[in-house]
Amino acid sequence: MRDALVASAFQLFLERGYEQTTVDDIVALAGVGRRSFFRYFPSKEDVVFPDHERCLADMTAFLATSEESAEPVARVCDAARLVLLMYAENPSFSVQRYRLTKQVPGLRAYELSVVWRYERELAAYLRGRFADRSDGSLRADVIASAVVAAHNNALRSWLRSDGQGDASAPVDRALGYVQAAFGAAPLPMATATVTPLDQPDDVVVVVSRRGAPLWRVVQEIETTLGRE
Amino acid sequence: MRDALVASAFQLFLERGYEQTTVDDIVALAGVGRRSFFRYFPSKEDVVFPDHERCLADMTAFLATSEESAEPVARVCDAARLVLLMYAENPSFSVQRYRLTKQVPGLRAYELSVVWRYERELAAYLRGRFADRSDGSLRADVIASAVVAAHNNALRSWLRSDGQGDASAPVDRALGYVQAAFGAAPLPMATATVTPLDQPDDVVVVVSRRGAPLWRVVQEIETTLGRE
Repeated sequence: MRDALVASAFQLFLERGYEQTTVDDIVALAGVGRRSFFRYFPSKEDVVFPDHERCLADMTAFLATSEESAEPVARVCDAARLVLLMYAENPSFSVQRYRLTKQVPGLRAYELSVVWRYERELAAYLRGRFADRSDGSLRADVIASAVVAAHNNALRSWLRSDGQGDASAPVDRALGYVQAAFGAAPLPMATATVTPLDQPDDVVVVVSRRGAPLWRVVQEIETTLGRE
Repeated sequence: MRDALVASAFQLFLERGYEQTTVDDIVALAGVGRRSFFRYFPSKEDVVFPDHERCLADMTAFLATSEESAEPVARVCDAARLVLLMYAENPSFSVQRYRLTKQVPGLRAYELSVVWRYERELAAYLRGRFADRSDGSLRADVIASAVVAAHNNALRSWLRSDGQGDASAPVDRALGYVQAAFGAAPLPMATATVTPLDQPDDVVVVVSRRGAPLWRVVQEIETTLGRE
């Protein structure tokens, strides 16, 4: 019945517009009573985003079962991928909703509040992981925000292209950018990562574990800069 | 008259609560008509945030007049400081509003939409500056989001401490964290910055202009790691 209500709602939103559709219209088309609607959805806005509550609960559970040894930034990136999965489960529905949300300011506000809840989930986990740092709360907020922004940038590109192709590769690239800026090196052994940029006055960012042998860091820089 | 309306509104919000105060109550206390209220404020929510439109306009103008040579991340950090200035102009008012916003979900939603508009301003500027990069839009969104998160983390700490002390030092520290992660070196000449972290398996991040002499990068790493 829940799925039928969502399907009826979207049929009417597309035919008549969101504002012109009432809950009464939706339940009439779905052939159920008003009480059934409100058993599943607190408001008309909620039927537009039927899966966020489940996804938020999944994210909370996912982060709560994290291993102590998990690299925190990688872990919140994986948590963000749960949101992508939800969108990718049903591309045509996700694209319809994206178009609808862009047109209706009230839905845009609703979406901002949902995004904020995801961000709070990620930040809460990071705050716990960074509890022994004096700047733990700052790091947690900044990284959570960056992860959400990167995820949403790639997700929006995919939605704008009508949900064509695989969304996970661009999301991986986007999250990789945040991990390069904030994450620890992924390997437990000493390692160095060098990222050259393509600007005339570009910068080189070297991320290395403190235990990495210096010669290896230098070797990586030399190789990347083409100075050897 | 605008200031009188804001003062009357806040007096009533504190005495009776936000939800229990009507626009009629506010104009009665201020001794003006309803039309005067709506000339200044589209809705009751807007009187809670009387200065954001001005601040958004200031930010737009500030970014529009940026020099081509300005380092983009430093520039959006400076733009974010305009918001801090607005809060710091009137600490007791800012603290009152902070408490009110925490209590009223509708105001929280309003605030999220304002924060989103600031973030869009910063991202639009960065997108222009990164127009020649294939990942320019991603970088713009991530950095704008990180700047806003850092600024708001420090701002909230200051508001929680009742607006005591200087807010600009913690905001500078917070924005410095984002600049270290994403910004280019501040000097036009070759330079290297090494940031050691205080974790057992900590990482070292070296940000260097491509033109920096290798010996100087290595020297910086050695000094920081205490290996010389």
